[in-house]
Formats: sequence, structure tokens, C-alpha cells
Amino acid sequence: MRVVNVLLGGPTDLLPKNLMLNEVDADWIGVDRGSLRLIENGIIPSIAIGDFDSLKADELEKVRSKVKDIRYFNPVKDYTDSQLGIKIANESLHADFINVYGATGGRLDHFFANFLMFLSDEFKNIAPKVRIIDTQNDIRYFLPGQYTLHKILDKKYLAFIPLTEMNLTLNDEKYTLNNFHVNHPISFSSNEFLGDIGHFSFDNGMMCVIQSKD
Amino acid sequence: MRVVNVLLGGPTDLLPKNLMLNEVDADWIGVDRGSLRLIENGIIPSIAIGDFDSLKADELEKVRSKVKDIRYFNPVKDYTDSQLGIKIANESLHADFINVYGATGGRLDHFFANFLMFLSDEFKNIAPKVRIIDTQNDIRYFLPGQYTLHKILDKKYLAFIPLTEMNLTLNDEKYTLNNFHVNHPISFSSNEFLGDIGHFSFDNGMMCVIQSKD
Repeated sequence: MRVVNVLLGGPTDLLPKNLMLNEVDADWIGVDRGSLRLIENGIIPSIAIGDFDSLKADELEKVRSKVKDIRYFNPVKDYTDSQLGIKIANESLHADFINVYGATGGRLDHFFANFLMFLSDEFKNIAPKVRIIDTQNDIRYFLPGQYTLHKILDKKYLAFIPLTEMNLTLNDEKYTLNNFHVNHPISFSSNEFLGDIGHFSFDNGMMCVIQSKD
Repeated sequence: MRVVNVLLGGPTDLLPKNLMLNEVDADWIGVDRGSLRLIENGIIPSIAIGDFDSLKADELEKVRSKVKDIRYFNPVKDYTDSQLGIKIANESLHADFINVYGATGGRLDHFFANFLMFLSDEFKNIAPKVRIIDTQNDIRYFLPGQYTLHKILDKKYLAFIPLTEMNLTLNDEKYTLNNFHVNHPISFSSNEFLGDIGHFSFDNGMMCVIQSKD
């Protein structure tokens, strides 16, 4: 199973503590300024992606001197930088799991661009491989089916966020639902696991599950 | 025109600088810990709402001694604290505009509960009165129609985030669209005003517009 970490160029204040120290041996993709941040933390990304127009000349040179596979993209293009990072993790590095860092915080239009891309036809099938991770949140996406969730040790809360119309069953969490019809996106927040695992199922569209802590 | 400010109990790090100093004469509603924060900043909220179970005895006493209209709600109830804050601003204080602070940052399940409540039948018609405001973002909601937007001075970026299927026209912004069909929620981010105002129209569901800055 190949795990690829993607560091986006967003704000750094919500990155998990010691992320790059703990993940120094992982496969990394750096997106725009994310590439420089990885290098400055002793990690050479497998691939650097972006237009790099936010980097100064000496910063870009640092990226160019370290990274073998640099993919330049024009700022006016069919994909956002974040989409390219996910797409290339999937297609070029054949990732089974894609952990995305730097996707939250700061400008909410950027956050929503990152968060909502998985509803598009092109990214829908990559979505189940993706986790968006920050200091307090772990976001995952699911296509219709039956699932077993595993509690993340330090996360107390479990939220189900249907992103589409669906019928939803929460089998064995603190708050349960039985084939409940949801007709618009909504956040069922502050649910909890009763033990180490929980089960849920739904029949249509896409589900987002967030494990979080205060 | 009556403006009501609502301070939710979420993290304080994304509150606009000097918010309570600048808005000391405004009508305020405090939600849960938000009530205490207002009082500690010299503002007596018109109404304090919540179960207040996160407050210590002496903190709750401080709220009780200062606020005339306190509305206690059981933690297991039909509405979230945030929903109650919005609902009471609308119904009890007859707000024409509702500015919501403390709705972003921290736990994303809470943010989504705040953000997505406006898609529900009950809150859909309050949505056009609401602005969700933090240090970098100004979020507004629109029902189908034709609109003129006014640029907020310090916000460079303009994003259109259709929350439903719709046909969307952006008339005179940096990037335009002509009756473009959107079939799932998506963030058209990093658009910009060309002057002080911009026009857009759409025919179905709900639109979110975010003005933001880096």
C-alpha cells in the first residue's frame, strides 16, 4: 500500500505538530510554496507542482536544485494547484492513500475549493483514498456503501456530513439513525464512537466523515 | 435597519481585531461561552443563549448577574446553539442584518454545522440577512435572483460558491460566466472585482459569496 503525502501552499499554523519530522521518510508531493516548506524541513519531495509565482527567485532556485521532477503549470489552467497535487499523487505515484496537509485555515474560498473538488466527476473516484488532515480535524470521503470506521485515538468527536441527498444509517454510534432521509448537505456534528469502531451506510452521492477534537 | 451581532462560543483566534471594542454599541447576542467573552470585553449582550455547560460556576454567575434575558436550552434539543443564536436574532430582535462571529476555525464539524444550516427549509429565508465574518473572510448567502455586490475595501478576492445545482451568470468580474450550468457544490475561488461593484445572477437553490484576503 502506497501512501503519498501532499503539502499544499496554504497557511502552516494548522499543520500537525512535527508533521515533517514524523513523516520524513514518506513519499511527498509539494504544491507551490509547499515544495519549499518541505525542503526547508529536510524533505525532498518526489514531485514539485505549481506555477511557483509566489516564490522569490532564490526560493525557486532552491526547489529547482533539489527536486528532480518539477511540473510547471500555468496559473490560468483547467486545474487548481491542489487538484493537480491530488491528481498526480493518484496517476503518477499510484497512491493507495493520499494524505493532504495545508488544505484548511486562512481563506475559506481556498478551503472550499479543496474540500468540494471531490464532488466533481473527475475526482469522485479518487475521494475514497483521500484524508485532509490538520491539527484538530481528520476529513474522509465515502461513496455509497457499508463501512466500518476506526476511532482515531486523540479525536473525541465523530461527524457525518452528507454532501448530497441520501438515506443514511448510523448503526452503533452515540447517536444513531435508521435509513434517515437527508435532502441537502448538513453537518451531523458532535457524535461519538461508543467503542473503537463504528458502522454506517448510505445509498447515494457522497459522505464526508470528520473526526475532530477540541 | 437593525443590525444584530452574534458571538458564538468557538475559537477566538479568528475574530476580527478589536471587534468588541469597535462594536461596543451594537446589539449583541452571546451564545454559550460567547456571552462571557462579551461581558469580559465590556459588552452586555441583549440576550444570552445556551446550555452554558462549558462555563464554570463563577463564570455562569457573571453572565447571570449582568444579562437580563438569559435563555437556557437543554444540550439535547432540536437546534444547535448557533442555530438558536440566529433564530433569536431574527425572531426576538427582528434583525435586518445578522453578523455572526466565532463561526469559523477549530473543529470543522462545527464550522460545517454553522455554514450549512442555511440550506435547511427553516433557515433558508434568514440566510440573506446573514454575514459570517472572521479575520480573512466575509461570507454571505443569496437566494435566486439578480444582485449587485459591493467590494469590501480590504478584501482582494471574490469567490462564488454555488451550494446547489444552478445556472450562473457572472456579468462583470475579472472572470465571467454566462448562464453556466453547475451541477454540484463547487468553489469558484480567486475571482476579483474589476471596480467597486460586481453583478451576478442565478436561477435556483442557494449561492454563497465569499470576499477574502490573504
